[in-house]
Amino acid sequence: MLPDAVALRDHVLAAIREVYTRFGYRRIETPALENIERLRGGQGGENEKLIYRVLKRGLPERTPADTELSEMVDLGLRFDLTVPLTRFYGNNHANLPNPFRSFQFGPVWRAERPQKGRYRQFYQCDIDMIGEPTVLAEVELIEATTEALATIGLADTTVRLSDRRFLSALAAFTGVPHEATTAFFTTLDKLDKIGWSGVRAELCERGIAAATIDAAVEFVTGLAEVSADKICDHLSVALPSLDDSVITDLDVTTRCLTRLADQRPVRWEFDPTLVRGMGYYTGQIFEIRHPDMPGSVAGGGRYDTLIGRCLNKDVPACGFSIGFERIVDLLAGVPRRDAIAVLFEPDTDLTTVFHIARDLRAQGRDTAVIRRQGKFAAQLTRLTEWGFTSFLHLREDTSTPEERPLTPRT
Amino acid sequence: MLPDAVALRDHVLAAIREVYTRFGYRRIETPALENIERLRGGQGGENEKLIYRVLKRGLPERTPADTELSEMVDLGLRFDLTVPLTRFYGNNHANLPNPFRSFQFGPVWRAERPQKGRYRQFYQCDIDMIGEPTVLAEVELIEATTEALATIGLADTTVRLSDRRFLSALAAFTGVPHEATTAFFTTLDKLDKIGWSGVRAELCERGIAAATIDAAVEFVTGLAEVSADKICDHLSVALPSLDDSVITDLDVTTRCLTRLADQRPVRWEFDPTLVRGMGYYTGQIFEIRHPDMPGSVAGGGRYDTLIGRCLNKDVPACGFSIGFERIVDLLAGVPRRDAIAVLFEPDTDLTTVFHIARDLRAQGRDTAVIRRQGKFAAQLTRLTEWGFTSFLHLREDTSTPEERPLTPRT
Repeated sequence: MLPDAVALRDHVLAAIREVYTRFGYRRIETPALENIERLRGGQGGENEKLIYRVLKRGLPERTPADTELSEMVDLGLRFDLTVPLTRFYGNNHANLPNPFRSFQFGPVWRAERPQKGRYRQFYQCDIDMIGEPTVLAEVELIEATTEALATIGLADTTVRLSDRRFLSALAAFTGVPHEATTAFFTTLDKLDKIGWSGVRAELCERGIAAATIDAAVEFVTGLAEVSADKICDHLSVALPSLDDSVITDLDVTTRCLTRLADQRPVRWEFDPTLVRGMGYYTGQIFEIRHPDMPGSVAGGGRYDTLIGRCLNKDVPACGFSIGFERIVDLLAGVPRRDAIAVLFEPDTDLTTVFHIARDLRAQGRDTAVIRRQGKFAAQLTRLTEWGFTSFLHLREDTSTPEERPLTPRT
Repeated sequence: MLPDAVALRDHVLAAIREVYTRFGYRRIETPALENIERLRGGQGGENEKLIYRVLKRGLPERTPADTELSEMVDLGLRFDLTVPLTRFYGNNHANLPNPFRSFQFGPVWRAERPQKGRYRQFYQCDIDMIGEPTVLAEVELIEATTEALATIGLADTTVRLSDRRFLSALAAFTGVPHEATTAFFTTLDKLDKIGWSGVRAELCERGIAAATIDAAVEFVTGLAEVSADKICDHLSVALPSLDDSVITDLDVTTRCLTRLADQRPVRWEFDPTLVRGMGYYTGQIFEIRHPDMPGSVAGGGRYDTLIGRCLNKDVPACGFSIGFERIVDLLAGVPRRDAIAVLFEPDTDLTTVFHIARDLRAQGRDTAVIRRQGKFAAQLTRLTEWGFTSFLHLREDTSTPEERPLTPRT
């Protein structure tokens, strides 16, 4: 990654981190290498097939016959930041605040064929609140994340909100067999790509009865007619099997989001077609979209059964993942530098060169000393290309050289 | 790594990066995974034995008899930041400024048995100037690094300076056989640990003649009597086989360091016993020490034959590595946070809670909302332990709650 790319990433990261810090989140770090069993024992789904596996140390250079690969491997590179967070919380929960507000940023690895937009190493940016059972977590994570996105130039976001418990109740209510619930979710999740006719066809292929499909589609499309402030009332009537707590949670979240939308350029909508891929969500789920970006820029939800796995109990948790790589890929322009080049002739005494540079740096200027070489105009062009915004030319005959601007050609 | 540890590391890193940026250095990033041949083909010495090796993808789960391990592996985790820098420069040199000022910070991995002070994953912090053939590079790197160390509380540093070309000339002059030069360096490098008698004994064991040992020891100890400003004159007389360019370089560097020492709390000394471990150094070498730290806090030197390896030519390069992990291990104290806890009762409306928190954050305060739980005094104690410096208690009956300080027990 070249300096301009790194500068953009550092700029985006610093802005995100500053906002989360203001919300009381603190950065933690976990190792890249994890025990292979731990990586495989989660709910990583397809990602578990993409783990880079690391050989044990001290193996014989020639392998005995019929050795199982699994016997030769003990570590793997993490494929997300959730599995390491689970271990981190298991090891350290006694010394952590409750709720624990965690911010993570780091590389993960997946053994995919490299192609445009897919890298074998990429960065994830995860924010989690652990130990908070109420939708306080959901609301705060949504507010903090829309705020973080706004600071990097992505204001005017739309929050899409749903609840896994609502989706399960909907499936049961319309007659989806219990064992087909996951398949029902998976198909519904494709609505953006394949449309309603595609969803109907795929549900049909999966053996779900036509009457059930009709009922589900009718219910979901009917919800689109309901205005945001009536959604809770509507659901409590239209879906009587839905637990009261789901309605209460939805009521609090939507009232808080409405208040937020009064003060910030943020919109929200209840979207019954929102599913989110991972299997571990247990409550409200959400996504953030921005008009300049296809798909979502961040997504997350509540997952109360994963974090406590090492502790053999449920631990309430809610998280958000910002699509860091997608955002930096799409953000245009590098933050402007202000950098001065101190050009000196080969016969200039270096102590003088450094003395002048020291003075400039003491004034807070980014200053690089560079030897005069080749044609003057050509060197100035190169300096401009390298991002310098002004220069100062030290010659024997000028005791007080004058700073002159470098302007990029447009 | 817990939040306090990460906060300290981030604080140290930000300070170092800010100083290097002011000197015109820019951060680059390279991938953690490298081709295994590239990792092994460098001059990594012992470190090449400590590479974590990654299995090829798509191997059969049972290994046929007598498979070579090397056939099953194509990638490895980097063990330093120098090998990746070499590849980075080979791929990108046409688009980089000349000289290229590079700043790297990232994890490296070594398959050592974990023990106190040794981790299988740790961070390196490297600064390099590539493409600059003169001691401009050496002087600037020393100044920038002492300045970076000063910003993190390590002023009053001492720079130890030597030159590999001087050491080679010394070895030849005193009669060390050419093929024993490396062994001579390795032994001399242990002076700190084993003293002169140990050095003498080990050189003797290595088969170096007693007269040679006497001459070398006499020469080196004799240099300690020479004052800093006379060192160049002394060497040009006492070591006539030394190339003039070595003297000229030393003259420029020492004059610049003397001028630096006039303006900053930095001392320097020529130290003929300084060797530096890595085999790839080709010119001046240096180390920085601080009275509060055993050993050195940073070290580096010129290495003109390594970076250009991918390009099949020599490319002048000079680098410095800051002992990041050692520094953060020894630095006491976490930077002070200023964080406010907004305590609310279970029946408080969340929209109000978030509204008040939003106002505090708009004032730039780090603010976390936390539910009132358990005994009040006990909760305040916990908040203090978690690093909060004040709190605000929202109750129905107080419309304008007052912020109150939290003071850690001493």
